[in-house]
Amino acid sequence: MNNLLLRNVRPMAGETCDILIRDGKIAGFGTFEAEPGMAVEDGSNAIVAPGLIDAHTHLDKTTWGMPWHVNNRAAVLRERIDFEREHRLEIGIDPHRQSMRHAIGLAAHGASHIRSHVDIDPTHGLRLVEGVWETREKLDGIIDIEIVAFPQSGVMVMPGTVELLDEALRQGCEVLGGIDPCGIDRDPKGQLDILFALATKHGVPIDIHLHEAGELGAFTMEMMFERIRANGMQGKVAISHAFALGMNDYLRVGKLIDEIAKLDVAILTTGAPSAAVPSIMRLKEAGVRVGGGCDGIRDTWGPWGHPDMLDRAQVIGMKNGLRSDRDLEHVLHIVSQGGADVMELKNYGLKVGNDADFTLLAGQTLAHAVVDIATRPLVVKRGRVVARQGQAVVEMP
Amino acid sequence: MNNLLLRNVRPMAGETCDILIRDGKIAGFGTFEAEPGMAVEDGSNAIVAPGLIDAHTHLDKTTWGMPWHVNNRAAVLRERIDFEREHRLEIGIDPHRQSMRHAIGLAAHGASHIRSHVDIDPTHGLRLVEGVWETREKLDGIIDIEIVAFPQSGVMVMPGTVELLDEALRQGCEVLGGIDPCGIDRDPKGQLDILFALATKHGVPIDIHLHEAGELGAFTMEMMFERIRANGMQGKVAISHAFALGMNDYLRVGKLIDEIAKLDVAILTTGAPSAAVPSIMRLKEAGVRVGGGCDGIRDTWGPWGHPDMLDRAQVIGMKNGLRSDRDLEHVLHIVSQGGADVMELKNYGLKVGNDADFTLLAGQTLAHAVVDIATRPLVVKRGRVVARQGQAVVEMP
Ligand SMILES: [Zn+2]
Ligand SMILES: [Zn+2]
Repeated sequence: MNNLLLRNVRPMAGETCDILIRDGKIAGFGTFEAEPGMAVEDGSNAIVAPGLIDAHTHLDKTTWGMPWHVNNRAAVLRERIDFEREHRLEIGIDPHRQSMRHAIGLAAHGASHIRSHVDIDPTHGLRLVEGVWETREKLDGIIDIEIVAFPQSGVMVMPGTVELLDEALRQGCEVLGGIDPCGIDRDPKGQLDILFALATKHGVPIDIHLHEAGELGAFTMEMMFERIRANGMQGKVAISHAFALGMNDYLRVGKLIDEIAKLDVAILTTGAPSAAVPSIMRLKEAGVRVGGGCDGIRDTWGPWGHPDMLDRAQVIGMKNGLRSDRDLEHVLHIVSQGGADVMELKNYGLKVGNDADFTLLAGQTLAHAVVDIATRPLVVKRGRVVARQGQAVVEMP
Repeated sequence: MNNLLLRNVRPMAGETCDILIRDGKIAGFGTFEAEPGMAVEDGSNAIVAPGLIDAHTHLDKTTWGMPWHVNNRAAVLRERIDFEREHRLEIGIDPHRQSMRHAIGLAAHGASHIRSHVDIDPTHGLRLVEGVWETREKLDGIIDIEIVAFPQSGVMVMPGTVELLDEALRQGCEVLGGIDPCGIDRDPKGQLDILFALATKHGVPIDIHLHEAGELGAFTMEMMFERIRANGMQGKVAISHAFALGMNDYLRVGKLIDEIAKLDVAILTTGAPSAAVPSIMRLKEAGVRVGGGCDGIRDTWGPWGHPDMLDRAQVIGMKNGLRSDRDLEHVLHIVSQGGADVMELKNYGLKVGNDADFTLLAGQTLAHAVVDIATRPLVVKRGRVVARQGQAVVEMP
């Protein structure tokens, strides 16, 4: 049983206390004596925050830990997609080994949950999903992984994909993905009708990649709104990136956000540095659920990124022009509770009765912890220490 | 004398060789035997690059290493300036101690040169400059510091500032700074006429902060171009930030860049994540000298930043949407040779006869080193080891 007494920590930078954990759940905050045989850790007065959440990533894509992948190819979205699909296995991007490296890296940096899109296409069938499933099983108790069945190469333009998505959901993928119904698929009605039908059939939520900017993305969003209403999928749809909300038209964006709030659509942001992105403060004002994600890390698409949600908090915070302590605390919220809200996690957060999933953060204040991105002293998952001083307890393959 | 044999390094990720250093200068690349009494270091086949250059920072402002400075103030430029001027000493931002921390941090991360703007205003006179001068003397042989006499609070709106700038240049500040002649000073003709007169009088270059965006900044640039021509200051003026070049008007920006190239104006960029910034690739195509800088780090303006030019390379590269190895190598160029071009450094770079100022970089390739931001194994300044595994040889105050 995962029983633990964690002494001397400051929940969310508040008053110092101990945290008592029984059977992997938080049993109390206060001052406690160790029970016989109970593991004890000293937090050295560090901040404790709930486990960080990477609510938008791609565990099956990274080259992390592999020989450096030189990339001087053209930077067109469709070309990136096709190159990756045709060459990923030959390059050696084994979906199990690489998703292990990626997920363990996230856990070592304090993450407790991941939502990962995993590519599904006729070339690979469900092979990539199976690799990540294997990782999920091996990392049970280290980090929780939710899998989005993701038609990276398109739905309508890739015959056979619909059947594969159907099968993936039947086998247990928790979420249905989608991608740029106009930009990639050239058939927004086709893709969206199929996605909503499949999601309804399997009773799963949708999380769609929407890189489409400006009016094109706004158009696609409106088509999604119609289908959310028609299918009663309020609260069950997420839009990743949602670059259209970054367009420079205050009223137009306001109308879209009103509808997003009304239909309880969630937004996942990566703070994409070179794109126009949604304002997280405007979404906050509107009461929209917002999570954050690292997206692809060091893959055939691009070299940037680290498996660390505080590093991503920096990218999101800087991109949004945030500076105050209050605003930095909101960025931390996005990469923790915000992700939990999007993934509808039960038993998440620093409250008695919830899962004992948390990370210690180095730093004097929450804002300090966010900008410092220092090594996490200790990471606890369901009451068990899973990383110490940035090193996970499981071996990196 | 600073003699050193550095074995087994890969200059710019090329073929492995040794580097022989005599009297602080690079004496040769090849295979050498250690001379009697000569220090020997093994580079373990790491990449060696010339010393990184922070060509735009503020050594006098940081709270690095101090108790966390909570900041929930409004985010208006003028208010930030006034708050800092009125409270910096009371907060404990000692210009000498803090510039030591900042500069040693940069050296530990592989920097060999800094151009620092230092505030000059009637409240402090030259006190802040004197603090940084003390740091420059103490860090002689560790890192070179060039000081820009910087009227942070404005020139025309702050009576007494012109006389102080004049005195600072007389006492040896190498560069004359300026700031938003419209936005901050409300008198572009007034400030620019005075800056160009002072620079001409003292024979120093100008490096002006220009946050002014869009047409406002374009207007100020044009007023600068007129004065560069009139005073024959081609090649002697730098514009920091130059956000006007980030405006979304391809032809207008092209005209400005043509003039910038013709007058050999240098651009310093920080890749400001929440602003419209100049495209470093467009400036490269136009042959403009471009350096990079961390700007303020963890100061009363804002909490972000690290004293690490590879961290800044990441910010600049991501903001500019760069992904290919080739483009990442250009970002590395900007935070090294680019800064040297702007500062007109003699004897800089990995060539026989030049100063032995360089850093080892962890990573398989240059692009890998840029995105990995791993600890620098060894930093050498004028042939002397000044940092090892991220730790400087001098004590941090
Ligand atoms: Zn994605
Ligand atoms: Zn500055």
